[in-house]
Amino acid sequence: MSKENTQIRFVKRPAPGYFDPKETFAILKSPLPTQNELKDDQIMRSNAIGEVVLSKNPKFKVGDMVQAFLGWQKYGLTDGNPPPGAVLHDYLGIFGETGLTAYFGLLESKPKPGDTVVISGAAGATGNIAGQIAKIKGARVIGIAGSEEKCNWLVNDLGFDIALNYRDPEFVKKLAKATPRYIDVYFDNVGGDILDQCLKRIAKNGRIVLCGAISQYNEAQPKGPAFYTALISQRAKMEGFIILDYVKRYPEAINELSKWIQEGKIKRKEFIIEGLENAPEGLLRLFNGHNTGKMLVKVCDENIKSKL
Amino acid sequence: MSKENTQIRFVKRPAPGYFDPKETFAILKSPLPTQNELKDDQIMRSNAIGEVVLSKNPKFKVGDMVQAFLGWQKYGLTDGNPPPGAVLHDYLGIFGETGLTAYFGLLESKPKPGDTVVISGAAGATGNIAGQIAKIKGARVIGIAGSEEKCNWLVNDLGFDIALNYRDPEFVKKLAKATPRYIDVYFDNVGGDILDQCLKRIAKNGRIVLCGAISQYNEAQPKGPAFYTALISQRAKMEGFIILDYVKRYPEAINELSKWIQEGKIKRKEFIIEGLENAPEGLLRLFNGHNTGKMLVKVCDENIKSKL
Repeated sequence: MSKENTQIRFVKRPAPGYFDPKETFAILKSPLPTQNELKDDQIMRSNAIGEVVLSKNPKFKVGDMVQAFLGWQKYGLTDGNPPPGAVLHDYLGIFGETGLTAYFGLLESKPKPGDTVVISGAAGATGNIAGQIAKIKGARVIGIAGSEEKCNWLVNDLGFDIALNYRDPEFVKKLAKATPRYIDVYFDNVGGDILDQCLKRIAKNGRIVLCGAISQYNEAQPKGPAFYTALISQRAKMEGFIILDYVKRYPEAINELSKWIQEGKIKRKEFIIEGLENAPEGLLRLFNGHNTGKMLVKVCDENIKSKL
Repeated sequence: MSKENTQIRFVKRPAPGYFDPKETFAILKSPLPTQNELKDDQIMRSNAIGEVVLSKNPKFKVGDMVQAFLGWQKYGLTDGNPPPGAVLHDYLGIFGETGLTAYFGLLESKPKPGDTVVISGAAGATGNIAGQIAKIKGARVIGIAGSEEKCNWLVNDLGFDIALNYRDPEFVKKLAKATPRYIDVYFDNVGGDILDQCLKRIAKNGRIVLCGAISQYNEAQPKGPAFYTALISQRAKMEGFIILDYVKRYPEAINELSKWIQEGKIKRKEFIIEGLENAPEGLLRLFNGHNTGKMLVKVCDENIKSKL
């Protein structure tokens, strides 16, 4: 077992508009810290799977596999519960933050059979699961993504009814054509212009689920949705949520999602970044939409492989 | 009875940013039209009280007083039901569109005793009633208005806890100070910067009731709320509504409001524009915030006086 810890530290807040992974993060090698030191060193939360190497917790022994918010580091402190048995990677994807976000966010919008559900960032970790759940619930599902390849994956592999490439110059026209009965549920991962275009198409009593606004996070002057007044004329609502409020219902969600996976109704895709040192670059790719499916960072493989 | 009708016609859509009442509207004198002609001439909806001068409806006889959407004209066509008995003017104000909007909009946000409720356009027809209802429900009520005079009226006459003048250079600071436990309910009549400032102060699970966006209606480039992502971090929602969806509950609302008026818990104020010819100018004043309370246009008085 190595006595050295590798951590990625967040060292400089990036200027709006763009971030340079090399300036924003530093890779730090240091002696294996004690538990007290680790608390100070927990620099960013990032969901991870790890192996217990040191324990004062009677529930966990050395060698157990755990899932937790460990930060971007080789060794992290956790006191969480172990996840119920399943394919290990799923606890970072569909049973992790992104999948549970899709589950609770989409279901809180109460899609009915035949409803038109539009999902932005549809090829992302949360979006693709949200769309598949909407299909299971009988909705007509339209995904919005940033390339033809992603759109093909959504329609051909995942069964979305329509997928639209927002980089297509005809996007606005195609969105209108794809939503003749307007949009009952819009699950928004991106904000910006796409949110505005979907507000223009929102149906009476429509629901906008605010999951994220990745197009705006790095903007110097974040842009609000100019057409938000459509919420008035259409008696519609726009609501944000955070899955941490649903912790007590995680088991329910994981059971339901497991069932759908077993029935072949939900597929998953992972986009693996090899090596912790490449995590900052991977984060940038997330903002630029390079990934399809859930992005994971493989920190090291030998121990995990021995367990799988 | 005059054989001539006076109508204000909407003749030219104003350029964004400002409207000139003289260019936008035309005053038309014409012979008293038949019912068929009147349909073509119904140019703008505007709630009014009138006297029946011609009737083919067995429920109404000439001389009955009615309340209806008649348009800006001396003679209008209606087949509506007569309002239940009360002070006549109240059917244009507190029992009319603006009061019922306050009632349903505010109550749908479910304010609890002790909640912090913030109301913009608080000295307007809807805002002042919404604030008074919030007080009745035990909330701590903060009104936002555009002059010291309006603020004094809200606090001293209507019992608002605090009133803030948005033209005060210290407004943002004062809003933060006035909302130490953040904002549970924000009843928005104005949109624009004030909506953004209230989003910055929205509480966890806060509710934003979108009633109107008067600051944006005439803008060439309407501005969306840049801080709408606070809805995500605060698990808050922003919802629009239209009182026409509540028509079946109007009697309930009017009963409740009548009771509060009789108990002295709700006061009303009217801002009278004398003469139909001055209605276009009055509309401009509404956008510029010249009115305190409900703006009414007095079309003519002799018949109404004889009935009161």
